Amino acid sequence: MKTPPSLLAVGSLAFDTIQTPAGKADQVLGGSANYFSIAASFFCPVHIVGVVGEDFPKNHLEWLKNKKIDVSGVEIARGKTFHWVGSYDGDLSEAKTLSTALNVFEHFNPKLSASHQASPYVFLANIDPVLQERVLNQMSGHKLVACDSMNFWITGKPNEFKKILKRVDILSINEGEANLLSGKSNILHAAEYIREMGPAVVIIKRGEYGALLLTPSGPFIAPAFPVQNVVDPTGAGDSFAGAMMGFLAEMGANREMIKKDPQGWDNLIRRAVLTGCVMASFTVEDFSIHRLMRLEHGEIQARQKALLKMIAVH
Amino acid sequence: MKTPPSLLAVGSLAFDTIQTPAGKADQVLGGSANYFSIAASFFCPVHIVGVVGEDFPKNHLEWLKNKKIDVSGVEIARGKTFHWVGSYDGDLSEAKTLSTALNVFEHFNPKLSASHQASPYVFLANIDPVLQERVLNQMSGHKLVACDSMNFWITGKPNEFKKILKRVDILSINEGEANLLSGKSNILHAAEYIREMGPAVVIIKRGEYGALLLTPSGPFIAPAFPVQNVVDPTGAGDSFAGAMMGFLAEMGANREMIKKDPQGWDNLIRRAVLTGCVMASFTVEDFSIHRLMRLEHGEIQARQKALLKMIAVH
Repeated sequence: MKTPPSLLAVGSLAFDTIQTPAGKADQVLGGSANYFSIAASFFCPVHIVGVVGEDFPKNHLEWLKNKKIDVSGVEIARGKTFHWVGSYDGDLSEAKTLSTALNVFEHFNPKLSASHQASPYVFLANIDPVLQERVLNQMSGHKLVACDSMNFWITGKPNEFKKILKRVDILSINEGEANLLSGKSNILHAAEYIREMGPAVVIIKRGEYGALLLTPSGPFIAPAFPVQNVVDPTGAGDSFAGAMMGFLAEMGANREMIKKDPQGWDNLIRRAVLTGCVMASFTVEDFSIHRLMRLEHGEIQARQKALLKMIAVH
Repeated sequence: MKTPPSLLAVGSLAFDTIQTPAGKADQVLGGSANYFSIAASFFCPVHIVGVVGEDFPKNHLEWLKNKKIDVSGVEIARGKTFHWVGSYDGDLSEAKTLSTALNVFEHFNPKLSASHQASPYVFLANIDPVLQERVLNQMSGHKLVACDSMNFWITGKPNEFKKILKRVDILSINEGEANLLSGKSNILHAAEYIREMGPAVVIIKRGEYGALLLTPSGPFIAPAFPVQNVVDPTGAGDSFAGAMMGFLAEMGANREMIKKDPQGWDNLIRRAVLTGCVMASFTVEDFSIHRLMRLEHGEIQARQKALLKMIAVH
């Protein structure tokens, strides 16, 4: 079998301290690029570009390498790793940030190697849109780029973020962020408005309710895979994006398709979004990246099949 | 074309006074049997059994008759019609009851005529489970029965409600009620638990997120049809149930199928649930039954088609 094209993820590797109704996890592994890359690695080769402090466990970088995740773009900088402290209320729908220690992430300035620059698939995780732009400026002829963001950047650097939106193919954000970005409370209104801002494809994540996808061909509504026990929603969105982009890379999807073969594209992105929902359903079953680390390909396939059955109409 | 078998709805005809973020409606027409029967009337003949006061507008009963809804089972009692006053917060997910004047509904004691007793399809709207039982005791050989309820009865008359659950084929309740009834916060856990209590089919309504259906063959997740502007969610659940049961009656579905042809049943009930979601999407576009009163069959078909497209995976 041919090796699928590779996917570059720029984002954070971090420590998280998380309180949920299911319990507490202290200084566990997290970060958008961490969740994203593990999820994507089930589908295609992945390169991470990011920065960690000297306190970051070397054996985790080794573990990633063993998963065929290229960590040569992970800089080990003097100082401490990014540390996020957050908690979730009973309904688990939104994280409350208790503290953020950027540490080495404060001076993060992604510099891509020649091989990273040539990566055909790119994911810009939720980081400063100025950095997202710098990454895109270094890329040479990528086929498809997706990005994420958050309220902090949408309100803090609106012009920089709008510039990025004009250059990405897929935006994946959560419902509250979509409302904020568009000024629209209706999810379809919001998605339509954001599509006008640039991205051909808008994905609005709705937590336990799944995601709404809007492409040039219209909306697709994907349910979350119903899990028996949600332990920790952290990383659900990043692992959703990882599986989605990994699936698209594996399938060789690219932005040309969006115009040239909208129906073929629609079919692919719908399956990619469902795969993202499946991946997120595993992520939330344990704290940190624990569930993803012990996840097997067969489990993903079983839930993909089950989820398709849950939405099929004959 | 053969006339489909008829559907009997037992519930309220009422006045509602409703405040939503979109505005206020004073003493407008409402009531579960009102919403239910109009929605169902697009699919099959409907009989209403209920009670109104002398203040209830005769011309509305005439309007229902013109829609081929049999109102011979609507008693006009001395006194005033049931009046509900409620409001919705910004997220429109749950109604807050400000006051309930049962009026003539307080002494409602459904007595079915011979032709009503022979109706093959039955819907027991959200009324006292003691009354729901009295209705079932009067039925002779019905093919399929669905029921709704609410927190008030689940906590107020738990034993009576549990008795009813053993006698209904389909229970349709909202997510909060399902959590209360099952003691489970996870929606799939809740549905599984409730299925053990009696109904072969459990439908959990999730407002703007659609509905989860659990049958002996497994779960189905139906999204809400995304509407551009939600004015008033009142009656969404009753019109959902009306379209669902109307569709099942039109298709000749019955409880024998659930065991004898589970796949055929699953296909039917999935389409019925989607039809319910479509109907609810119209209901919420205006106050009271206004949108349903001017709804045309072609509009339903267009949204059914659009909703199927929004969940299709190829």
